[in-house]
This record gives sequence, structure tokens and C-alpha cells, in this order.
Amino acid sequence: MKLYNHPMAPNPRRVRIFAVEKGIELELENVDLLGGQSHTPEFLAKNPSGGVPVLQLEDGTYLSESVAICRYLEGVRPEPNLFGRSLREQVEIEMWNRRMELELLMRTGSVVVNTHEMFRGFLTQFPEYGNAQRPVVQQRLERMDRELEGRQFIAGDRFTIADITALVAIDIGAMLAGIKPGPELKNLARWHHTVSSRPSASA
Amino acid sequence: MKLYNHPMAPNPRRVRIFAVEKGIELELENVDLLGGQSHTPEFLAKNPSGGVPVLQLEDGTYLSESVAICRYLEGVRPEPNLFGRSLREQVEIEMWNRRMELELLMRTGSVVVNTHEMFRGFLTQFPEYGNAQRPVVQQRLERMDRELEGRQFIAGDRFTIADITALVAIDIGAMLAGIKPGPELKNLARWHHTVSSRPSASA
Repeated sequence: MKLYNHPMAPNPRRVRIFAVEKGIELELENVDLLGGQSHTPEFLAKNPSGGVPVLQLEDGTYLSESVAICRYLEGVRPEPNLFGRSLREQVEIEMWNRRMELELLMRTGSVVVNTHEMFRGFLTQFPEYGNAQRPVVQQRLERMDRELEGRQFIAGDRFTIADITALVAIDIGAMLAGIKPGPELKNLARWHHTVSSRPSASA
Repeated sequence: MKLYNHPMAPNPRRVRIFAVEKGIELELENVDLLGGQSHTPEFLAKNPSGGVPVLQLEDGTYLSESVAICRYLEGVRPEPNLFGRSLREQVEIEMWNRRMELELLMRTGSVVVNTHEMFRGFLTQFPEYGNAQRPVVQQRLERMDRELEGRQFIAGDRFTIADITALVAIDIGAMLAGIKPGPELKNLARWHHTVSSRPSASA
């Protein structure tokens, strides 16, 4: 299967990590987002929302939205399980994945796109709004540190899609927004070391 | 089961509509969001993220995040199916639900919380940022109109969770942001009439 990808954007990285965890090899085709390639008629035919990742399935059709793509990969390759087995476990993991996405990844994304010079000229930036999200992200990281007290992973005692979302969010925040969780957040540092040491983290 | 609710907030309405479609009766307990009730220690013990909806399950534990709650209700009462049956249908519906959530509901929410007087004093508003989201929402509505050409519902030929998310987004935008899709968006108007006519829409 082919994944329309960007080497730095956080959402394609979620899918790349997920695929490595599954042992699924994806053919990567990079899309020049800042060059406008995701908004060409040709690309919009694949994903009318004009973003990556987009997965081309075996039958030639296209699927977008990171979590939908990951769920598809879980369906075609159920092990190792990353979305939960019982109904109760599934919804618990979904709750945590959404918390990491809405409260951490999207907030961090708001800082990045509204403050980083890379996006100047590409979109209208609202730096005051973006900078106001920094302390919100910082507080969420501090809360994560408390949540990870006595708990090995984000959603409990095993690695799930929620860890992937959190890892990608923290790494993009450190790289493009200068938000680096300090070493005093010991549980968070321990978790980050653990998940960053998995082979999938280099995807 | 008890749902911690707010009568006007869009996310609890998603769950209320979903429950009516399922024929599941929920006991509602309203939470005074603007009065700070969702950030009391008692409420944070139920949902540390401090928001509604929160579902109290039969075993007394709590589940938050609208889509996780809806998936739980789908699990305990599989019919009528609102999340998809085959893997392919499931991920297609998830893609559409996420598009409606990220591109429509969250953008509309940004307009509302950053511009409506109801939130003045409750949070720091960035009106310039909020108002800049209005044309983005408007363009998304125009694109919905094209997507709904020859298609009865958001994700295809039957009512799904994606329709619920879209309905809630459009209704809150009309009510609190003054964003009303015009009658020239004929497909969107037809769809909105159809979904608003279902008994669940009054939930």
C-alpha cells in the first residue's frame, strides 16, 4: 500500500509508526505541502481535504484521516493489538487517544502553525493566539506527568495508539515550538524514553 | 446510565442524539459549565479534562470523550448500526466523522468561544482569530453542499455518526455564531431538513 506522506508533519508520522508496530511495509510518496502540492486537482481527487496522510488501498481507492487509516491497518493486521480488544478496553484507549490528540497534538499544532516562520506566507498567522496555547500545552504535559505516575503507558499497562499520538505531539512541539518537557517531569521523561526507544519511533 | 450533560453544548448533544437513535435512555445530569462546576475536584474525579459529556457506566466508572461514549453505546446496543459494519465501511464512516469534527465542528467552536459574549470573562478570547475562522466554516459548508450532490447522507446512503456530528456543528454555528447556510446550498438544505426531521434531532 502507498502512503502519501510528509517527512516532518506529525499526522503522517502517526501512521508510519503504527505501520512499523504492525510490521506493515508502506511505500512512501512525499507530498510537498508548503509548495501547495496537496491542493492540486490531482491530489484533491485523492483527498478533497487537501492533507496528508492518505493511504492508497489495494483496490486503488484512497483513505484519509490518520486514525481511520490506523484502524484500517489494525483491521487487516490485528496483531499486535493497538486499539483494544474488549469493548471496554477499546473505548478507554479511544478516550485516551482523543485526549492526546485534542488536548496535546492539536494545541501544539496551533502554536506551531501560528508562530513558526516556516508557515509565514503559507497561511494567516495569529501569533498572539498561538503563543497563548504554549502554557496550555505546558500544563497538559505536567498533568501527563501525574497521570503516568504508576502507569507505564498513556492508556494503561501496554503500548497503544494513544502513545503514538502523544509521542508525535511532544516531538513536534520540541522541534518546532520549543516546548520541551523538563527533566523534573520524571514520569513523562521515563515514558518518553521508553516509547522513543522502540524501533518504530524512528519511522 | 447517567450522562453528565449540558443543554446547549454541542458535544453532549452528539451523545444524546446517538442514544435516541439507539433507543437507549440516559439519565441526564446537567453540569453548570460557565459556573465552573466541571472544574470542581468532585467533577475532575469523573473527568480530569473537566468537560462534558461524561457517561457513568453500569459499574460506576466514568467514560468521557463523545466519540468513545458513542462507540460504547454502539457496543452495548449494536442496532441500528451507526459506526459501520465491514472494516471498509467502518473506516469510511470514521473518516467522514473526523472530517465533520475537525473541519466543521471544531472550526465553528473556535468562532463561538472566541467571539460570543457568553464566553467573555470565562476564557481569554481572540476575536480576530475567531472571526478569521468564519469564512473557513463557510467554505466547508459550500464544499458539503457539493459532497451531498447525489448522496443522501454525509458518509453515503445511510444515517451514521458523521451526520450527527455535522448536524450538531451546523446548529451551534447558526445559534451562537450567526453562520447559517443559505438556501442556495440546496443539497445541504435538503440534508439538514432530513436529519432535523428525525425524532433524535430534538435530543
